Amino acid sequence: MYVERIPRLESSTFDLDQVMAPDARIIIDHVEPVIDGGRYAVKATIGSPLTVQADIFADGHEMLAATVVLQCEESRLVTREQMVRTENDRYVAELDIQQEGAHTFHIEAWIDVYGGFVRDTQRKREAGQSLALELQEGRGLVAQAREKTSGCVREALDALLNGFEALDDGDRIHLLTADETRQMMRAVEHRLFLTQSRPQRIEAERTAASFASWYELFPRSQSPQRGRHGTLRDVIAQLPRIRAMGFDVLYMTPIHPIGHTNRKGPNNALASGPNDPGSTYAIGSQDGGHDAIHPELGTISDFRDLVSAARAHGMELALDFAAQMSPDHPWLEQHPHWFPRRPDGSRKYAENPPKKYEDIVNPDFYSDPKLWLAFRDVLLFWAEQGVRTFRVDNPHTKPIPFWEWIIAEIKAAFPDTIFLSEAFTRPARMMHLAKVGFSQSYTYFTWRNTKAELTEYLTELAANPLRYYFRPNFFVNTPDINPPFLQTGGRPAFLIRAALAATSSGLWGMYSGFEICEAAPLPGREEYADSEKYQIRQRRYDTPDNIAGEITQLNMLRRLEPALQSHLGITFHNAFNDNILYYAKTAPDREDRILVAINLDPSCAHECDFEVPMWDWGLPDEGTVDVEDLLHGDAFSWHGKLQRLRLEPSQPYAIWRCWPRQETA
Amino acid sequence: MYVERIPRLESSTFDLDQVMAPDARIIIDHVEPVIDGGRYAVKATIGSPLTVQADIFADGHEMLAATVVLQCEESRLVTREQMVRTENDRYVAELDIQQEGAHTFHIEAWIDVYGGFVRDTQRKREAGQSLALELQEGRGLVAQAREKTSGCVREALDALLNGFEALDDGDRIHLLTADETRQMMRAVEHRLFLTQSRPQRIEAERTAASFASWYELFPRSQSPQRGRHGTLRDVIAQLPRIRAMGFDVLYMTPIHPIGHTNRKGPNNALASGPNDPGSTYAIGSQDGGHDAIHPELGTISDFRDLVSAARAHGMELALDFAAQMSPDHPWLEQHPHWFPRRPDGSRKYAENPPKKYEDIVNPDFYSDPKLWLAFRDVLLFWAEQGVRTFRVDNPHTKPIPFWEWIIAEIKAAFPDTIFLSEAFTRPARMMHLAKVGFSQSYTYFTWRNTKAELTEYLTELAANPLRYYFRPNFFVNTPDINPPFLQTGGRPAFLIRAALAATSSGLWGMYSGFEICEAAPLPGREEYADSEKYQIRQRRYDTPDNIAGEITQLNMLRRLEPALQSHLGITFHNAFNDNILYYAKTAPDREDRILVAINLDPSCAHECDFEVPMWDWGLPDEGTVDVEDLLHGDAFSWHGKLQRLRLEPSQPYAIWRCWPRQETA
Repeated sequence: MYVERIPRLESSTFDLDQVMAPDARIIIDHVEPVIDGGRYAVKATIGSPLTVQADIFADGHEMLAATVVLQCEESRLVTREQMVRTENDRYVAELDIQQEGAHTFHIEAWIDVYGGFVRDTQRKREAGQSLALELQEGRGLVAQAREKTSGCVREALDALLNGFEALDDGDRIHLLTADETRQMMRAVEHRLFLTQSRPQRIEAERTAASFASWYELFPRSQSPQRGRHGTLRDVIAQLPRIRAMGFDVLYMTPIHPIGHTNRKGPNNALASGPNDPGSTYAIGSQDGGHDAIHPELGTISDFRDLVSAARAHGMELALDFAAQMSPDHPWLEQHPHWFPRRPDGSRKYAENPPKKYEDIVNPDFYSDPKLWLAFRDVLLFWAEQGVRTFRVDNPHTKPIPFWEWIIAEIKAAFPDTIFLSEAFTRPARMMHLAKVGFSQSYTYFTWRNTKAELTEYLTELAANPLRYYFRPNFFVNTPDINPPFLQTGGRPAFLIRAALAATSSGLWGMYSGFEICEAAPLPGREEYADSEKYQIRQRRYDTPDNIAGEITQLNMLRRLEPALQSHLGITFHNAFNDNILYYAKTAPDREDRILVAINLDPSCAHECDFEVPMWDWGLPDEGTVDVEDLLHGDAFSWHGKLQRLRLEPSQPYAIWRCWPRQETA
Repeated sequence: MYVERIPRLESSTFDLDQVMAPDARIIIDHVEPVIDGGRYAVKATIGSPLTVQADIFADGHEMLAATVVLQCEESRLVTREQMVRTENDRYVAELDIQQEGAHTFHIEAWIDVYGGFVRDTQRKREAGQSLALELQEGRGLVAQAREKTSGCVREALDALLNGFEALDDGDRIHLLTADETRQMMRAVEHRLFLTQSRPQRIEAERTAASFASWYELFPRSQSPQRGRHGTLRDVIAQLPRIRAMGFDVLYMTPIHPIGHTNRKGPNNALASGPNDPGSTYAIGSQDGGHDAIHPELGTISDFRDLVSAARAHGMELALDFAAQMSPDHPWLEQHPHWFPRRPDGSRKYAENPPKKYEDIVNPDFYSDPKLWLAFRDVLLFWAEQGVRTFRVDNPHTKPIPFWEWIIAEIKAAFPDTIFLSEAFTRPARMMHLAKVGFSQSYTYFTWRNTKAELTEYLTELAANPLRYYFRPNFFVNTPDINPPFLQTGGRPAFLIRAALAATSSGLWGMYSGFEICEAAPLPGREEYADSEKYQIRQRRYDTPDNIAGEITQLNMLRRLEPALQSHLGITFHNAFNDNILYYAKTAPDREDRILVAINLDPSCAHECDFEVPMWDWGLPDEGTVDVEDLLHGDAFSWHGKLQRLRLEPSQPYAIWRCWPRQETA
């Protein structure tokens, strides 16, 4: 059991200089937000405060001070925000980020020697203990600080020390412990045992990264003339209708030339006829690739006009970026080594055995860095045409480092660019793509229908760590997803899903046809019958049952109420009926609450008691709140915590703004 | 809006070689256990499996493979454990650590090309697709692997390839997709896009680090003769009694010479009489410091005899390490610069204003590295005397880096040393001391009394991340803590707390007097009246109401049932009475459950229905389980999920072992 040679006083197995380094004494732990130790950026939105928190502590009873240091990468501007101690050892500060782009923050903490002296002296005075030595100590601390300063600060400390001499002991203590003295000392004092947390990156984006309403369409279907292929100019004609519904982003499926080899026919048929337009995702033909426009849609000049027209309507365009090719894409000729082949020399088509995608070829991303640069140049080209939002198709089937790199490249040139990830895949991959840089992401929202499912999912999205990097965009439908709930629920189902998406998330979207309650499926599938992915579908939007009015009202409320501009700040409250989901939304620094109740059952009316969150305002259960019915505009009061509601399928949701009754004194 | 010069195909803002590095493609995320990115060690116990998990994923549909690589720092021995994919992208493996001391693990993941080939080929075969090209591809992969091997592996692959030629196509596919072929290829194949997670440290400790029952006493009180100062030899005489109760660790408060300056009198009085023994924590006098024994207790030879005697009884000694001094400690003379002074040159006593500790002096830990080495040498000295467990007094008032360093230093020489942290402080500090190396920790257990409090606290301790570094030692009382629950609850309260501690935690402890239900307080305080900290207290243990029998039975059950040897594996189940706490404990790889029900109200009997966790074994609600009453030894069966219990104050707990009825076929 005995070890022969034990080290003694002179030696240590470890480097004591390092162990005893001053910056090792104070611990900064559980910093929030931090993503993977700072490896990935926290997402912030201009205008929304970012709360930074940490456990900060050391040994003993010393008083600590802490600051968050924020640096903007572009301007190198540094700002400091003093942290405030809350419960236990938790320190908190709010960052107000003003500029788009990359930032970093770190925390600095140190022993606040003078603050501790003031605290201890005050405690001793309250306990009636002698303060003779404290007088000497305090004066000594000020004198010591004076030595290291110069200019006007030194003069101020000199004045303090001179004044000190003239006072009696009681006033001396008052002077030493005065707030102004303490503030002055905090500014000049040597920061003992100063330590810094590891820097954490922040990516600050413009408002539309976290708050926007999206509308998706196929340009080729927008012709008003039956049988004529739609054009970009036809899209321009649709702008007023779409804007009138309150949408901010017009997202177009790919507008590039479509391949001919193995072109798909209607309903994904393997064979196509001569007039079948093919899948817009089979990108590339003799007419060009990702940087070309399908000739039938128009020209680059038409495109520029569309960009301008959208902007004139207060909207922006989102382009679809699908990093894949039809077998006729020019790059297959120009860069054959980018594309894998089978052992017999034939082209390798996209597949997920046993499924095959014969009209699509995937490049080998690790064949050549030039491939990455070529895709980067495609995005730069469209950015130069004025596009600042890209919806990315299936990013989970391309290398994750590719996305981290290409998003950084584009943002380096165009910092206001927004990327939406369409990664309908398993959670780890979906979330990780957000981590590496996507501004926003499609979600599982489409498949969350019950009160329990929605509560769990919305709670998860609004919690640490997802809240710091994953911004959900709640699409109610897409060309790929015709949810069973809509297939069977009729008009009330469309109202339910629109209200859910529009009130629970800062970002929501719909694919055209939703506003006229289109839901005819391929039998037994989540696909639309006669899917627009493979054929042109012209629509009349003025159907009698359309819900454009309701969508317009929801989008208007979103503009008016900051609480509806984020998926954060959500709290689920009690509504005593499993069919009724009921939640409150809160905006930072706002006292009012937006209350939303939704009947999740499209087939019949439900009613129940529900709880008004009186406790949020410190009101008793029998308190009174003022209420505004945001759908009908009338104002009234609720007396008492328990209220009753009834929601009919024809109007399956209620939205109120609610705040404590102001007593007139 | 236009940026003038956009980079084009030839250039990238970022280093593409690095971005496209093969080890950047696969993501290993959410590794568990990881503590602060690997900065601190995960605690493991020899004989208990350590489960390693991670999300592992890449783009596309490639098949991945992953391994955990474990390395022992001392022996450099490396073992590999293949990870198994579970839900979604979660991979899991169990590590079985055999040797004490420092280890590291990391995860390796790569694209399992051949595994993916086998999977896809099987899917295509099931779908009836042509496999002509797959035959060529598979043969090519084997031939390619053969090129890089030699010796018997190459021979085996040669044999496979030769055999292949002789087969028809159907058998060729069978050969290529056979399990043995796949295993062989896994062993030899180039690991494409190999990536490694950051190494995570593990500190493996012996069983007693996580499973032991502690008994605390003051040696000076152990004399059987009224009025005589107790000695280490008196402690030897107590060993049979303590061991008979089933305790493993005998923890003695400090045994060092006690200072005279400002010595405290009974009940912490500022003045002491000539016969007052003083606080054992005022360490050091003219008789020596931390490496000396208080003369009235005996000699170093007596101490060695005590170490041997404890070992002979199957117990071990724990010494108290308090890194503080009385004003008479020899170091004050020898190293005056280690000790801070007031501005008037006087000694600075320990204080936490307005509280003062006049009999204690704290050194300035940042005055001199020699101070750290001196404390290290103290611990090495006692380790050389055979001590392998140290209970550390108030570690939160000494620098955290000091503990990280001194624990590492001692373990470098004596890897089997165990440190218990007595940090009754705020959560962040308490937990962080465990992170930096303490094997086990005192807790808030003493102040958790209700069903809700206990459920919440035990759940938190057993969850990630605490489960990986914080081992709770549930002391039911200490010389400093005489809990109100015990002061007012009488004998039933002692039984309740003993049963709670002994069945919910692998580590529990009591301070002598608990077994005879001592609880007289200083009025209105958590302190004992006539606290043993300041005076000698001789006790009779054969009181009529003592609970030694119950303690003995609890400690015996802990030895018999692996589920009771850890605070992990706890699940709270329904007992429909707020006074009755009811939980199941599970040991790894065991099918049975230990069920514990405790009436938390010492003042009256409670009864209720409770749920037998039939679902744990996949049994229906009306299933049958066999039960052993571990307190009374009788065996019976429960039919049906809902059973009823009643617990009297005289026997406020029940403990059953329970397993599914084995049907005879």
